[in-house]
Amino acid sequence: MSNKRVYLFQDGDKSMRDLLGGKGANLAEMTNIGLPVPPGFTVTTEVCNEYYATGKKLPAQLDAEVRAAMADVEKNMGRTFGAGPKPLLVSVRSGSKFSMPGMMDTVLNLGLNPTTVAAFIAETGDARFVYDSFRRFIMMFSDVAFGLSKHSFDEKIFAEYKAKVGAKTDLDLTAEHLKEICDLFLKHVSDNAGREFPTDVWEQLSLSIEAVFKSWNNDRAIYYRRTEKIPDEIGTGVTIQSMVYGNAGDDCGTGVAFSRDPSTGENVVYGEFLMNAQGEDVVAGVRTPVLISELEKQNPAIYKEFIETMDKLESHYKDMQDIEFTIEHGKLFMLQCRSGKRTGPAAVRIAVEMVAEGLISKDEALLRVTDSHLDQLLHPRIDPHSTGSAIKLATGLAASPGAAVGKVVFDANTAAELGKHGGLGEKVILVRDETNPDDVHGMMAAQGVLTARGGKTSHAAVVARGFGIPCVAGAESLDVNTHAKTFKVGNHVVNEGDIITLDGSTGDVFLGAMTLIDPEVSGSFGTLMTMADEARVLGIRANADNPNDARQALEFGAEGIGLCRTEHMFFEAERLPIVQELILTKDESVRQACLDRLEKIQQGDFEGIFEAMDGKPVTVRLIDPPLHEFLPSFEDLVRETTRLQTTIQLGKGSAADQAELDEKMKLLAEVEGMREANPMLGMRGVRLSIVLPGLVVMQTRAILQAAAKLIKAGKTVLPEIMIPLVSTVNELKVVQGQLESEAKKIVAEQGIDIPYTFGTMIEIPRAALTAGEIAEYAQFFSFGTNDLTQTTFGYSRDDAEGKFLQRYVEQKILPRNPFETIDVTGVGRLMELAVKEGRANRSDLKCGICGEHGGDPESIYFCHKLGLNYVSCSPFRVPIARLAAAQAAIMDRVKVTLDK
Amino acid sequence: MSNKRVYLFQDGDKSMRDLLGGKGANLAEMTNIGLPVPPGFTVTTEVCNEYYATGKKLPAQLDAEVRAAMADVEKNMGRTFGAGPKPLLVSVRSGSKFSMPGMMDTVLNLGLNPTTVAAFIAETGDARFVYDSFRRFIMMFSDVAFGLSKHSFDEKIFAEYKAKVGAKTDLDLTAEHLKEICDLFLKHVSDNAGREFPTDVWEQLSLSIEAVFKSWNNDRAIYYRRTEKIPDEIGTGVTIQSMVYGNAGDDCGTGVAFSRDPSTGENVVYGEFLMNAQGEDVVAGVRTPVLISELEKQNPAIYKEFIETMDKLESHYKDMQDIEFTIEHGKLFMLQCRSGKRTGPAAVRIAVEMVAEGLISKDEALLRVTDSHLDQLLHPRIDPHSTGSAIKLATGLAASPGAAVGKVVFDANTAAELGKHGGLGEKVILVRDETNPDDVHGMMAAQGVLTARGGKTSHAAVVARGFGIPCVAGAESLDVNTHAKTFKVGNHVVNEGDIITLDGSTGDVFLGAMTLIDPEVSGSFGTLMTMADEARVLGIRANADNPNDARQALEFGAEGIGLCRTEHMFFEAERLPIVQELILTKDESVRQACLDRLEKIQQGDFEGIFEAMDGKPVTVRLIDPPLHEFLPSFEDLVRETTRLQTTIQLGKGSAADQAELDEKMKLLAEVEGMREANPMLGMRGVRLSIVLPGLVVMQTRAILQAAAKLIKAGKTVLPEIMIPLVSTVNELKVVQGQLESEAKKIVAEQGIDIPYTFGTMIEIPRAALTAGEIAEYAQFFSFGTNDLTQTTFGYSRDDAEGKFLQRYVEQKILPRNPFETIDVTGVGRLMELAVKEGRANRSDLKCGICGEHGGDPESIYFCHKLGLNYVSCSPFRVPIARLAAAQAAIMDRVKVTLDK
Repeated sequence: MSNKRVYLFQDGDKSMRDLLGGKGANLAEMTNIGLPVPPGFTVTTEVCNEYYATGKKLPAQLDAEVRAAMADVEKNMGRTFGAGPKPLLVSVRSGSKFSMPGMMDTVLNLGLNPTTVAAFIAETGDARFVYDSFRRFIMMFSDVAFGLSKHSFDEKIFAEYKAKVGAKTDLDLTAEHLKEICDLFLKHVSDNAGREFPTDVWEQLSLSIEAVFKSWNNDRAIYYRRTEKIPDEIGTGVTIQSMVYGNAGDDCGTGVAFSRDPSTGENVVYGEFLMNAQGEDVVAGVRTPVLISELEKQNPAIYKEFIETMDKLESHYKDMQDIEFTIEHGKLFMLQCRSGKRTGPAAVRIAVEMVAEGLISKDEALLRVTDSHLDQLLHPRIDPHSTGSAIKLATGLAASPGAAVGKVVFDANTAAELGKHGGLGEKVILVRDETNPDDVHGMMAAQGVLTARGGKTSHAAVVARGFGIPCVAGAESLDVNTHAKTFKVGNHVVNEGDIITLDGSTGDVFLGAMTLIDPEVSGSFGTLMTMADEARVLGIRANADNPNDARQALEFGAEGIGLCRTEHMFFEAERLPIVQELILTKDESVRQACLDRLEKIQQGDFEGIFEAMDGKPVTVRLIDPPLHEFLPSFEDLVRETTRLQTTIQLGKGSAADQAELDEKMKLLAEVEGMREANPMLGMRGVRLSIVLPGLVVMQTRAILQAAAKLIKAGKTVLPEIMIPLVSTVNELKVVQGQLESEAKKIVAEQGIDIPYTFGTMIEIPRAALTAGEIAEYAQFFSFGTNDLTQTTFGYSRDDAEGKFLQRYVEQKILPRNPFETIDVTGVGRLMELAVKEGRANRSDLKCGICGEHGGDPESIYFCHKLGLNYVSCSPFRVPIARLAAAQAAIMDRVKVTLDK
Repeated sequence: MSNKRVYLFQDGDKSMRDLLGGKGANLAEMTNIGLPVPPGFTVTTEVCNEYYATGKKLPAQLDAEVRAAMADVEKNMGRTFGAGPKPLLVSVRSGSKFSMPGMMDTVLNLGLNPTTVAAFIAETGDARFVYDSFRRFIMMFSDVAFGLSKHSFDEKIFAEYKAKVGAKTDLDLTAEHLKEICDLFLKHVSDNAGREFPTDVWEQLSLSIEAVFKSWNNDRAIYYRRTEKIPDEIGTGVTIQSMVYGNAGDDCGTGVAFSRDPSTGENVVYGEFLMNAQGEDVVAGVRTPVLISELEKQNPAIYKEFIETMDKLESHYKDMQDIEFTIEHGKLFMLQCRSGKRTGPAAVRIAVEMVAEGLISKDEALLRVTDSHLDQLLHPRIDPHSTGSAIKLATGLAASPGAAVGKVVFDANTAAELGKHGGLGEKVILVRDETNPDDVHGMMAAQGVLTARGGKTSHAAVVARGFGIPCVAGAESLDVNTHAKTFKVGNHVVNEGDIITLDGSTGDVFLGAMTLIDPEVSGSFGTLMTMADEARVLGIRANADNPNDARQALEFGAEGIGLCRTEHMFFEAERLPIVQELILTKDESVRQACLDRLEKIQQGDFEGIFEAMDGKPVTVRLIDPPLHEFLPSFEDLVRETTRLQTTIQLGKGSAADQAELDEKMKLLAEVEGMREANPMLGMRGVRLSIVLPGLVVMQTRAILQAAAKLIKAGKTVLPEIMIPLVSTVNELKVVQGQLESEAKKIVAEQGIDIPYTFGTMIEIPRAALTAGEIAEYAQFFSFGTNDLTQTTFGYSRDDAEGKFLQRYVEQKILPRNPFETIDVTGVGRLMELAVKEGRANRSDLKCGICGEHGGDPESIYFCHKLGLNYVSCSPFRVPIARLAAAQAAIMDRVKVTLDK
């Protein structure tokens, strides 16, 4: 800790954000590059920590440093703090390293007391202005320092006084009125604060500094830091700055501006201002501000200075700036500057154009765009200028990004019937209390999904993100009546067929249609992606199970398919009965016939995918889920058979009922025999392939025959056959044996060589722990981090997310949801061990990841550090993964440089 | 590989079991210590491997070596192989390193052909004896060398000939008859073997050697090696030995004997013999052999030589010997010796007495007793001399050791009603098709359990072993009709109330009562246990959930309780409703009232356990299972509500039905809300304690108040509070916080210090991977290897054992069931890492194991090597664990010595 507690603006710079907070550091920087900044100083963030460490006491030495700094400001301004003839008034504001807008306290006009009020009136000749300033100061200060609510001044005393004198607006009040109000305010303080309002300006100042420190730990600040992941230990600085007034006459004004358009990124100054007004008037919306371009007409000289200042700022900071300014009697002052928040499209355009302008490097440009910026570009979004009659109905959780417009439907079958995948049918929005696996076919056909219950990791959210369709989840104000096909929100009743608009990026739900803007894949976006591809080391693949998804993935820049799940192909309507027969038959010849039929169908699927991915690798995972997932639900069968049994017992059953019962009882027994206590850990993955070798043979034939056909047609096919859920190398040996003997047959039958490789998922702790052995048989590893997280933590994702995981994250038992971002400590340790020991036994072992983490930027950073060959994610996450991989490579490079 | 392929007996010794097989090595040893052994030689096991490695060809050099060895035997015996006047006949026998009785082929009387038959008749003057020998030789040789079944000689030609000449028994056949039979046999060979029977004795010999090698890989030998875990690569030797004849006259005889009684271990020679007979006559049981003591009366000189030989053998081998002998014309020959198989009681007694006799060391004694030897002592067993009318009904799997007699009951409720735990009620045997968790209360009250379906790892088997009650599982010949309360086996119908006897150590089921012998815990057993306790390093604890089990554990020598499961206390009939109310209520005050009631009840339980364990540590695990285990079954509720709904819909429902439906629908919704997709990985263990902190507080109070009460009563109480299912150190921090603040309160309330410690289960991979962090908060680790195996392999035990684990073991994908013996490669690696990193951060970290592996000898060896402080197992396994821990320490020590 340094000894210096107070920094004059001229003594600081923008690199001192840790010590001075963002606001203090930027005011110092602007001062030092010669911009017009009202003089002031900053009490450091270390003093805040000192204050808390010593049981909430300001350090004894602080006062002397503050007085010295104030003396400098007084000299600079030619004014005196607490005395006439020209009294110095100051603002006191918080400011931590990271912006926490509105979370902490501010005091304006500090330094007024009976003496300085009189002197200020004498100086300005404007008693009304001075008493109005005094009134505001008493209220703000007392709120902050004594905990007397603004409300107790504003709504009670002020409003009552206005009523008494018949004033309709503040402007109807005279100087005399305001003076009386000040007296009433001072009395309110002495009646309720247990003391008189301080007239000593140094006491005013030290109480205000302390109040700002206290506000660091008010409830809303703590909550904000938690949600924004800002550490509690960084503390806030306190900036004391001489007041300037935009409301001191018609040659005064105030405004906010951005150095480029924050919505579009266009390189034009964008802002608004009001003459004869204070900052809060601009924000409050009482008067309508005018566009910054108006200033040119009103005051060309000031406008010129303003534009020059903005240019200077941007070329100095090399980023789009968000500033506040005030004009006091024709003189421009800069009150704040910071990097401006921007929309996704703006972020991309600004980054790309600043590279073209030579302002920043490509590395810097890539680091400035976030995954949520890109996400906005990759989905349809509501046109910010959309007009029309749509009204906001509700806000739920922003569960899957993008916007959608469509007719409300309440069940999956109707959705599937009306909508058609690919957008050829009607556009529908599926509205449910919550969704379950039975709804998936309806979700696939819908433009968007809206649920009344469930969080960001609910079934609806996860599936919607997987399909890349917008979802608003947990909109709790919705009262959904599936039976009546209607939902209510407040007074609105929405029926099936009514049109609504969802915004899955914000969680908003509107009644009526809004205009949507299509996703962008060219222009600045394309340029940025090219930069990312140049910078990154990691390969990027996509998870895709059908030719459509494969083509989508290619369009988004995927370099291969990292996970093609073969079982999804079995769920389609015309295929499921074959799969069910395969599972249920006891007759070996029937089983083989089913396998033969499935082989033809799967071969067709693979041909489509291989053709789409011509020249790029495709990792095909052999069948994974437990077989009972393909059969009717046990619970439904229990209900159905009990209903039939009861009906028959009561003498109300027909012969048909008895026949149905007999059949269903048989099916029930079959399904019951296959039920599992913990299906996640049961008969699935490679275990299926070993117990039912016919499946491996069938799938091998389908893959390799498809490959052979396309190779003969001149395509380049690179199939990688992947075995799921391996926990011992011997499983791999057995399956490899089955597979290779079948592959030899096919090569002989087809008369050509098929360049396939053979590998395994690493998704079970034991596989990671024995990766050395496994690498002797596997040519590649693909980390299935969903299952690996489940088994390493002993969490069933289905159960954990609903039952305790949220609680764990809230209580900081876990830093974050390990299903969203890889748990580096536990799961990551296993991955590291597997990569190291696997490559020790096979130096060219290809390693990738195909769990959902493959699309998470922080996890991608870890994968880069691990030295994986590629990450694979859903097609819609591919651009985000390309960017994140580039960022990982850059951060890694920069760190290496810094370490030297 | 050595160059020498053939060893004369005088050139080998007992250390050469690898090379000569057990039989060959022991014949060599006996020869060299001067015992009367008919001369011979052994072809090495390496030749067997050479035979297979060269595509089933005998090595060219073998013949010369065999001829040289035979010349030595000829000289020794004064006989000639293949020629008169005194022809040499030999036996050809198999013999590998490990005994594989009856699995491979043998040829006797080899060397007979028309020439030697004539010479042998001339020599012996006994044509009948010689033709009988020739007949036997043709049959055995042709069976072995040409694959002509003995049956085709014996049942067909021989039986038909006897019928034709009217011979009732073999003794009715004359020399002439037997000569004709030999001719018929030779014709059968030439008709069916594709060649003539070989008259060249060298060809006879080399075909027989080759036949023995081939028999190494016959189906039954392969099967036997698999079940006995004998490696396939060791091969068999072939021992060629000159024939001696116990059936050559009344001064001849043959017998088998043990140097001590193999049933009881008493130090007296035990055996049987027959005069004028061959070995197979003793075994076949055609004539009844007489006790060896008879020999003393019949031939005191031979008897004396025999007893001296036995003494010499035992003091040479330092172990109880099982031998075969023959007396030929008044001369004693030893044909085989090996360590004798013995019952459990005999093994213990022999080991202990041999130490007393100074024959072996305590270490050797401890290594000679196996876990299954001890297991026999620790359970009631059927008196081998039991007589009476009991008849054997069936044989199932020996699923849980010990014998039981009781009345048959067919449902758990009847069992619970009639029987009472502790044996105060009627003795009952629960008979079910298979058991499930609903049957547990009935199993607890039964003497034994018999099921018609399920394996050694079925629910019935696992639960019975846990309770220490006998179980025969999977007795597939039983046809159980629960409804009619009867089971059928063949023609027997057994009704409820009929008495049966089970032997869970053999799998036998008898109709009627047999006499049982109680378990032994004193005498030799006690002496052996004292030796074990001196030798072992590992501590031994027991898993016990109630005072009875605690006392039982103490009696078996437990040094503490390693796992006291608190939730078992909740399942008792009067407690379950409180637990259910606790779970279902939404009213915080009702919840607290339930917790208060449970606190009192649990405190009582702990007082009983702490009192029993006075001075010994007790590890109490806080509640672990998912709460829905305490609620009614979802499936039953679905059936019940559907039945009621259907009844009401059909207009047959009463008002009471509607009321019942309403109530059950409410309950169904609650139960459904708590259902989990994978309960093993769901809301259980520490997760419960974090989401419902009241549980931790209640359990802490119950434990510490019980401890305080007993400390005040002068007892020493050492509670160790253990948290289950931890996967991150933060869970431990949170629970420790709750627990310590409650503990402080109690210490203050009670005014005394309570010396408790705080620790965690390590049963989730992530806990092992972060053991270093966890050890900062945990004073002890207890490995829960059941769950750790489940999560490390990604196996749900409930599903895996029924669905694929058996297949995996059969196909050698897994070397054994990892739920029985710790998987050292995967699970063991995590354990090792946890111990190492845990102790690095806390050097006095106490580490133990409380999974079922704690009672498995091989796993105990691993725990010893890991340096754990203790193993904990079910009370009935405690003596086995003490022995295994001693064996581990000894093997470790010996290995260390050998390594020097």
